[in-house]
Parts: sequence; structure tokens; C-alpha cells
Amino acid sequence: MSILYVVGIGPGAYGKMTIEAAEALKNSDVIVGYTVYVDLVKEHFPGKEFLTTPMRRETERCELAFLEAEKGKTVAMICSGDAGVYGMTGLMYEIGVRYPGVELKVIGGVTAAIGGAAVLGAPLIHDFAVISLSDLLTPWEKIEKRLELSAEADFVICLYNPSSKKRKDYLKKACDLVLKHRSPDTVCGYVKNIGREGEEGCVLTLSRLHDTQVDMFTTVWIGNSQTKNINGKMVTPRGYRL
Amino acid sequence: MSILYVVGIGPGAYGKMTIEAAEALKNSDVIVGYTVYVDLVKEHFPGKEFLTTPMRRETERCELAFLEAEKGKTVAMICSGDAGVYGMTGLMYEIGVRYPGVELKVIGGVTAAIGGAAVLGAPLIHDFAVISLSDLLTPWEKIEKRLELSAEADFVICLYNPSSKKRKDYLKKACDLVLKHRSPDTVCGYVKNIGREGEEGCVLTLSRLHDTQVDMFTTVWIGNSQTKNINGKMVTPRGYRL
Repeated sequence: MSILYVVGIGPGAYGKMTIEAAEALKNSDVIVGYTVYVDLVKEHFPGKEFLTTPMRRETERCELAFLEAEKGKTVAMICSGDAGVYGMTGLMYEIGVRYPGVELKVIGGVTAAIGGAAVLGAPLIHDFAVISLSDLLTPWEKIEKRLELSAEADFVICLYNPSSKKRKDYLKKACDLVLKHRSPDTVCGYVKNIGREGEEGCVLTLSRLHDTQVDMFTTVWIGNSQTKNINGKMVTPRGYRL
Repeated sequence: MSILYVVGIGPGAYGKMTIEAAEALKNSDVIVGYTVYVDLVKEHFPGKEFLTTPMRRETERCELAFLEAEKGKTVAMICSGDAGVYGMTGLMYEIGVRYPGVELKVIGGVTAAIGGAAVLGAPLIHDFAVISLSDLLTPWEKIEKRLELSAEADFVICLYNPSSKKRKDYLKKACDLVLKHRSPDTVCGYVKNIGREGEEGCVLTLSRLHDTQVDMFTTVWIGNSQTKNINGKMVTPRGYRL
């Protein structure tokens, strides 16, 4: 039985990886991933074989990892953040039925929702929803429905993929839906380049977020009705007595 | 300016901590936390001063950390999982306004939703909601509303604190609410003692989950309408072409 690790490397900086993630990469002969993620880890794991595929070649990337593992090599498929949150773990299990001789070992990581929350303060202290605004693989109507129901449920909402070249107005659309149920003064935040060079967090109101253009390397948090701005930090109370 | 780290130690096992979390604990003079979490890390950080308070003494625990930091010591407040998900980070910022000479540094960790997902397979590959069933600090009506709207939104749902001595039937109640919108065959899972001795995962249907008694060391995942059981693993597809 060959071992194929599926590893979340965290936001980017080496220190934000778990100890067992680093050990899995050290134990691997081959590290497979999207070009950008491989570049993030390369210098810390000298002597490894690195295989990359570009974006939108996810199925091919997974097949590549299984084929290398079938040769008897120890392989790690890496994803940024956690491999189980909008990552490759699902596809690896789906494709894995064709490779019964390869055993998957999933190693959790710090996803953007959590890594970025630590930059902003404490937005996720209470119940929250995580929604991707990318409609590449999900109908936009389904995304809209989830946004509205989350706003109605008073969840803190964390948005992945809030923008791209083709979807410049999606964050504005999302804010419009949330504004049906939540005050324009709701405390929000966004973080660009979480755990990487150029990391930059900003805490602002929902109405200002509505008019902000973010890029594809940004994650967004919309507070619930209780979320506060404490000295520039975004803080959702749990309800403890002070 | 004294440094006060707020550190998520991950699910429990030392290897599931991030590299920077371990470094922060190594750099600290004092480690403060709930008794159970301090016991999890104690052996790995010899020579440190450990201060604990029991459950339900959260405010006192935070004050203790700030008072130690004010003495000029480097202090780490630890939480299991991530300190920003139902953890102490929020309370630390709220109390922190009274200690302007202490700077908080938050270090993210692998929360139960992610650590347990890696045990079950890949339940969180698509949009999801995280809800705590504890009504100690949240009215039950609000929890019910969030459960129903999440079910309607077809989120994968991750439940924290699904049970306690006083709330033995809460998971059953939660399943009843979800069953209004989702098939009894919906793929679900639970993991007991994530990342600790006695770790045990189970994939089952929503109707079987409804009739299962879990304990307070368990986290629960309810799949969306697309979630599959692949060879005993709980897998939510993202939508890639196979």
C-alpha cells in the first residue's frame, strides 16, 4: 500500500503549517500541487521532486499524484489553507476509487477563514457560515440563496473568492443581499495575502465594504448583529459576562 | 509593551499544532489555560509556569493572563482547536481594553471542524455553516433558527457541543429541524476525541444520526444534498469533472 498525503500547508508562511504537515512533506519523495503553492514551500524541502499543474487542471493534478504513488513513491498533494475546505481532498477521494492500492492520509491545515480571522481580531467567535463567491462550479442562484439565508440567520459570514477578473461586482452583489437583513453599520473586515508577503487587514462597515474593490487574494468577513469594532479589531462576542 | 499570545493548539496531539504555535509556547514564561488543555501540552514545554482555571471561569482566566503579562512576563493563553472559533480571543480583546500596555498576538490553529473533517474524509469541500448547540450563552430559539435556515440553504453543517449532561436530546432536536429540508439518507458523520487518544470517526445517515447518542467530546457533520459516502468516507463534491 503506497501512502498519498493530502496536506493543507496553511496560509503560506512556513510557520503557519502544522508540525505534522511539515513532517509529511519531509517524508515525501514527490510533492504535487498548483504552481503557486509549490513555490511557497519549495525552499523548505530541498531535494524533493516537485510536480505542478496550472489552475483549472485539478483532475489532472490528482491523477498525477496517484500515478506517482502507484510507482511506490511517497507522495504529498499540497493545497493552501486546509485541503478539505474548497481543496483537493474531495476530488482525491472521488478519483481514489480507481487506485485501490493507494491509501490517502489527510492532514488538516489553517484555512483562510481562521488565518485571516487572527489578523482581524476575533470575528468567528460565534456561529458562522463560509461561502465561496466563485460561480465556476456552483450556480450563482445557489450562492445568492445561501447569502440571503445566512444573513437572515445572523451568521458571521466568511467569503472566499470574493472577486476575480471576470467577477468584479460579485462582492457588491453579495453585500446588497446581506444589507436586506443587516444594518449598513455592521462591522466587516477583509484580509489580503493572509500569511504571505504584503499581508494587509482592514476593518470597516458593511456599507463601506459594499463600495470596496477587493482582489482574488482577499478573504472577507461580515459580522453578525453583535460584532464590534474594538480599537480597530473586529470582535464577535460569545456572550460571557465581563 | 508586553506580549500576550493567544494560541490555538489544534485538536490535541502535539503534531497538529502549527510551527508558530509551538514557537510561541517555547518563547513564553507562563502558559495559561483551561486545565484539560494545559494537561495536553504540559509535557512538551518543560520549565514553563502553568496557570489554570476550571470551566466556566473564562473571564477570570483572561484576567489572569493579562495580570501576568503586566508583570512583564511573556504569556500564552491557550485554547484547543483555534482560539478564534468559540475560543478566548474575543473575550481577550474585550478585556484587553483595560490593559493598554499589553499587546495581543493571535496564532491560528486547526479547529475541530477541520481536524475532524480530515478523519471523516472531505465533508467541508463546499460552503458550510458551523453552529454550536450549547445554549449556555445563546438562546435556543436562535440556535433553532440557524439550524433551519442552514438546512434550507443546503449548507454542510458542522455542529460543535452537540451534547452535554444537561442537553442529552439536543442533537436529536437539531436532526429533526434539518430533516424538514433534507433527506433521511443524507450522509453525516461524527468524530469523538479528534486528534487525541481514543479518536473514533463514524459515517452514517441523517436518520441514524438522529437516533445516536454522542458525548461532549464529539463533533458532528451533516452533509449537503450532494454529499456522498465513498468507501466509508464522507465526501462533499465541489463539482469538478471526473
